Amino acid sequence: MPQQITILGLNKIGASLGLALGTLEPQALPGGRPVITGWDRDRRVLSEARGRLAIDRAARDAADAVRDADVVFACVPLAELAELFTSIAPHLRHGAVVADTGAAKAPVIELARQHLPTSVSFVGSHPILEQPDGSVQDARLDLFRDAIICLVPGVAARPDALEVLAALVRAIGAKPYYIDAAEHDAYIAGVEQLPLLLSVGLMETLRRSGGWREMQALAGARLRDVTLPLLGDPARGSAACADNSAALRQRLDALIGVLIELRDQLDRREALETVFDTAHALHARWLETRPHMRPGEEDFLGPPIEPVSPLRGMFFGQRRRKPDDPGARRR
Amino acid sequence: MPQQITILGLNKIGASLGLALGTLEPQALPGGRPVITGWDRDRRVLSEARGRLAIDRAARDAADAVRDADVVFACVPLAELAELFTSIAPHLRHGAVVADTGAAKAPVIELARQHLPTSVSFVGSHPILEQPDGSVQDARLDLFRDAIICLVPGVAARPDALEVLAALVRAIGAKPYYIDAAEHDAYIAGVEQLPLLLSVGLMETLRRSGGWREMQALAGARLRDVTLPLLGDPARGSAACADNSAALRQRLDALIGVLIELRDQLDRREALETVFDTAHALHARWLETRPHMRPGEEDFLGPPIEPVSPLRGMFFGQRRRKPDDPGARRR
Repeated sequence: MPQQITILGLNKIGASLGLALGTLEPQALPGGRPVITGWDRDRRVLSEARGRLAIDRAARDAADAVRDADVVFACVPLAELAELFTSIAPHLRHGAVVADTGAAKAPVIELARQHLPTSVSFVGSHPILEQPDGSVQDARLDLFRDAIICLVPGVAARPDALEVLAALVRAIGAKPYYIDAAEHDAYIAGVEQLPLLLSVGLMETLRRSGGWREMQALAGARLRDVTLPLLGDPARGSAACADNSAALRQRLDALIGVLIELRDQLDRREALETVFDTAHALHARWLETRPHMRPGEEDFLGPPIEPVSPLRGMFFGQRRRKPDDPGARRR
Repeated sequence: MPQQITILGLNKIGASLGLALGTLEPQALPGGRPVITGWDRDRRVLSEARGRLAIDRAARDAADAVRDADVVFACVPLAELAELFTSIAPHLRHGAVVADTGAAKAPVIELARQHLPTSVSFVGSHPILEQPDGSVQDARLDLFRDAIICLVPGVAARPDALEVLAALVRAIGAKPYYIDAAEHDAYIAGVEQLPLLLSVGLMETLRRSGGWREMQALAGARLRDVTLPLLGDPARGSAACADNSAALRQRLDALIGVLIELRDQLDRREALETVFDTAHALHARWLETRPHMRPGEEDFLGPPIEPVSPLRGMFFGQRRRKPDDPGARRR
């Protein structure tokens, strides 16, 4: 029997999931090619997804969509999940696996615990993508090729539910990465929301400073680079920060502590240079890591480096690498 | 009589100045094409500059270099300026104009006051360049074409000294921008050193967090963009921060204040979104400004914007612009 897979919310991730799962070879999954049912509250999006063959069948509502589903992917913003879970809860099959695809895991696991029946298993999933935001028009068959997809089991998830999802992840060419919700949220807060919040905080600081009008003429690559996250959508950005606020607050506290230390080191040239050297070396090492490797996989990294000044010569070549250098593999 | 111009320190800026000034048409300056004397404490750099025709004459030491000079450009790091000023002070002609080319102006004006005789005029200069760092090999004839060059008179500078420098600035196709030292340093701290220090602080925060090894695998474009300043040289970066520490400390205090406010808004979705909207709108407006325009010049900007949420629709098109979009003029 082919798996019945339902996708609720046909944004870029939802529609790409449909494309990837719906075009699998029959031998990719034990039950053969799965059958994809889709739903979106925007009828035009739903019909566009159908036209693009991202789904086999368009359901008339969320309840109808999940009735026969073995696996349900809920691809909607966190702020809409409680309502969606509530509306599908009475209609889910016993033993169904429900997953989300958002970037914050502890809050969604709590929502699942509150709003989904214990007869289903919830597994949080988070595909690590260069550009996760977008609409059905941005969907791509190979969006998940080689991508890490974090999998976080919900509080009442049966062990085999995790394996059901992991099999789908592998089938579409992605890599499952099992991780705890709190760790996941802390890591993502550090590498996604904290840099974004810094860009926003920097612009807000300059806006308040009184000289912004003059500063604009003197600002160049430095400010432009650090504020690149502001080219994204502000509503999505602020929502991502609010969704992961608990983990982000801890990171932000740590950063504020570091900035206060740096403030006191501004006049101590040697101490300041050591901090810069360490940051540059760490950064260069990161740019050297192989893309799409899960932590620990195939020695993707050497041992962690220590903060020492004499590293300068050692990392000189890496540090000077320009972002458009083909050798900078993560670009 | 052609002007005698001396360049001390033949790094990228010094050698480019030599190239630009030494290839002027005779009618570009009242005295005709100036004569360029160069000196660098590295003999190989000096001979390379001579070979590239960046200078007409290579001086054997700094004292020899400045003896006949009408204008002296000191293109060395701030940390070396006191020693250089002391060594040339007894040999400067009465009425000579001395300039530097660094990014911090209040400290250099103080050094000039301490170490240069009152018989000469010091004028701080700071060319606003996309990539100011580099060696004699990176020198370019057109490095200053259309660039803003900030000019800040020293405490004892004669009024005509400022005009002497401004004439040279115009002759090489750049734009003089007269500005107060404290304002200059505050603006540059905001748009240059503060973003850099943020990148360093962010990496240091992630390094200390304990999960860096795992985070590296999950980090992508967001972290990469915000840490782009770390591709530069750490010694230069930390020196730039230390050079401008007084102004930078004020900016950093302001930023820390903003981050503490943001921290308390993480759970208030609407307030957070307003801050994001404002930052995005301000950023989009900045990217729209015409390059190489001095503040106030040719209405390069409209009136300052107010922090309001309804701006979202208005700026939607700009905000979505990608950095490699040719419409993003400041890229």
